[in-house]
Amino acid sequence: MVDILHRIGAVAPLDDVYQAIATPEGLAGWWTTDTTGKSEVGGTLVFRFGDLGGFDMEILELDPAGHVRWRVTDGPAEWIGTEIDWRLSRHEDYTIVLFKHEGWREPVEFMHHCSTKWATYLMSLKELAESGHGRPAPDDVRISDWH
Amino acid sequence: MVDILHRIGAVAPLDDVYQAIATPEGLAGWWTTDTTGKSEVGGTLVFRFGDLGGFDMEILELDPAGHVRWRVTDGPAEWIGTEIDWRLSRHEDYTIVLFKHEGWREPVEFMHHCSTKWATYLMSLKELAESGHGRPAPDDVRISDWH
Repeated sequence: MVDILHRIGAVAPLDDVYQAIATPEGLAGWWTTDTTGKSEVGGTLVFRFGDLGGFDMEILELDPAGHVRWRVTDGPAEWIGTEIDWRLSRHEDYTIVLFKHEGWREPVEFMHHCSTKWATYLMSLKELAESGHGRPAPDDVRISDWH
Repeated sequence: MVDILHRIGAVAPLDDVYQAIATPEGLAGWWTTDTTGKSEVGGTLVFRFGDLGGFDMEILELDPAGHVRWRVTDGPAEWIGTEIDWRLSRHEDYTIVLFKHEGWREPVEFMHHCSTKWATYLMSLKELAESGHGRPAPDDVRISDWH
């Protein structure tokens, strides 16, 4: 099992960052504008990226103190059953985001792509938290032929 | 052992991307302007980031067909002994870069940071290859309190 790991810091209140990952409205501001679903433990968030498809995530944990966790229930075969974990903490002026996309079965080329793509989306989350404007799909940062 | 993985694609000739990772002049265009050393197998590349310190890398492989490999010989304790592997290939208009920073002993918080930071530097490499201008340190993209 292999994991994608990232860390960013946003000069913004912890609750602003929490809302951006805990609610469909927040997620639509930095990941994909086409985000729907119910923000509650056991609920499902539905993320779509036009022709590129998307992901369904079951919410496993929602703690406003700084922990969110999802399980992928639909999407690319490599993603199904993997889990995404968010830990927020405060350090001086920053809200620190520790991100893990855990449980990949193999370090396939698509995992390399997703690792870089997550980084650009996390920078979009940082921009949203700091300035009010992220870069969600379909206006996300293009990193390669795989988008 | 855990690895950082990334994948980007640059609309640029493979040899341009190869030169950007195989030579001090190329590396200075996207990673850090303070890059020195000798571009030969067994030689050492020296990367410095002002007050933040830096890394020394022994070159293990230099193959213009699309493979470069370094071993970290000096730098932060977590980096020493780890290896960085670059594989280049062509796909339609793109030169694809498969990147691995291999052999981390533990998935520490600093590894999360380095994963995201590598992604922003790889986007800088893509910019350099496509436009002639990257964003090397000290004008690199800031991602958090750890820079």
